Amino acid sequence: MEKIYTGKTKDVYKMESGNICLKFKDDVTGKDGVFDPGENQVGLKIDGAGREALKITKFFYELLNDRGIKTHYLSANIDDNTMEVKNAHVFGEGLEAICRFRAVGSFIRRYGKYIEDGTPLDAYAEITLKDDERKDPLITDEALEMLGILTKDEYKTIISMTKEIAKIVKEVLAEKGLDLYDIKFEFARDDDGEIMLIDEISGGSMRVYKGDKKLSPLEIHSYLI
Amino acid sequence: MEKIYTGKTKDVYKMESGNICLKFKDDVTGKDGVFDPGENQVGLKIDGAGREALKITKFFYELLNDRGIKTHYLSANIDDNTMEVKNAHVFGEGLEAICRFRAVGSFIRRYGKYIEDGTPLDAYAEITLKDDERKDPLITDEALEMLGILTKDEYKTIISMTKEIAKIVKEVLAEKGLDLYDIKFEFARDDDGEIMLIDEISGGSMRVYKGDKKLSPLEIHSYLI
Repeated sequence: MEKIYTGKTKDVYKMESGNICLKFKDDVTGKDGVFDPGENQVGLKIDGAGREALKITKFFYELLNDRGIKTHYLSANIDDNTMEVKNAHVFGEGLEAICRFRAVGSFIRRYGKYIEDGTPLDAYAEITLKDDERKDPLITDEALEMLGILTKDEYKTIISMTKEIAKIVKEVLAEKGLDLYDIKFEFARDDDGEIMLIDEISGGSMRVYKGDKKLSPLEIHSYLI
Repeated sequence: MEKIYTGKTKDVYKMESGNICLKFKDDVTGKDGVFDPGENQVGLKIDGAGREALKITKFFYELLNDRGIKTHYLSANIDDNTMEVKNAHVFGEGLEAICRFRAVGSFIRRYGKYIEDGTPLDAYAEITLKDDERKDPLITDEALEMLGILTKDEYKTIISMTKEIAKIVKEVLAEKGLDLYDIKFEFARDDDGEIMLIDEISGGSMRVYKGDKKLSPLEIHSYLI
């Protein structure tokens, strides 16, 4: 296998079959040693975090595939910390799709003049550019089209899939007594140009509360495994 | 007349008729003494700047009214530095609609990973919240609707009017050999709930170049008066 990308929480390999192998690492994003899925830096390393993220990702992707949602997921090998997925063509240099059930984080930093921190939101979805240097800026459908990153139809598809998938994750967490505040996803085109969900779905890509307490990724995982 | 608002470049009075009187001041926005229509601070004071801004605003609003575009403009009194306009109900605590013909300023600060500074754009329009503290954040139609600021239909109307008006201003400037890079507008509802253009249209709310040289508001005015 040829390593084609070193990510913040995963390394990416090209397999001989043309599929992709994702190797999960024991890093989570955060700042000053505190976990924050909205941060771009790798803030801390936790033994076993990669395996747990993979277990959770496997669980959610198998559920999504069962529900007929188009994803990149093919199989997972927990012992190797690896997941086999379809080849993906990312949009531009990468987008993040965020679904928000509560007004927190960057939503409050932008719109705090109009809404109180923690206010419930009705599955609000938005797209940001993956760009650490420019702090993952928000972008509209019109700008995405003008920059040649997404068509307006693709934007609609991604927003719609984001809400649908986020609601499924929220339901699963609710069954464990947990409250999903927000979650981020990545999408890409497959070899046929169809849009599919890619990357992981784990505690590192969502903000989850139990009552008033914000849970760490490992705490989230402990409820799900 | 009762003063109801003290603005960065204008004061606002309520007239006995129910109409509004805008009194233009000799301040322009900028930073460190340099004019920048993208800045929120009043950066400098220029004698006669208010009267010139009013003259330009009068010229453009009379042109727009003639073209059948809905605006707040009723009349102007150049000697008094005042303009009489319809009563307006702003959206939330105020929005700015921006039309961009070149990728400069905050567009490059957000999307500079994808486009070179100065690249021509095809009348790209977007809406930001007027919020100095949060640096006038970009906002989508979905977020505007969710926050109760604009409906999605109103968003479409404002984007469409923004492009139409910006193209008219661009043509006027082009006849003088000037190149409009971007321009910002404000909109509001009138007493019947219809959307109309409000505020000024002058050198202080647009970026204009002559060849490679960026013009100051007074330089822009000197070509138009």
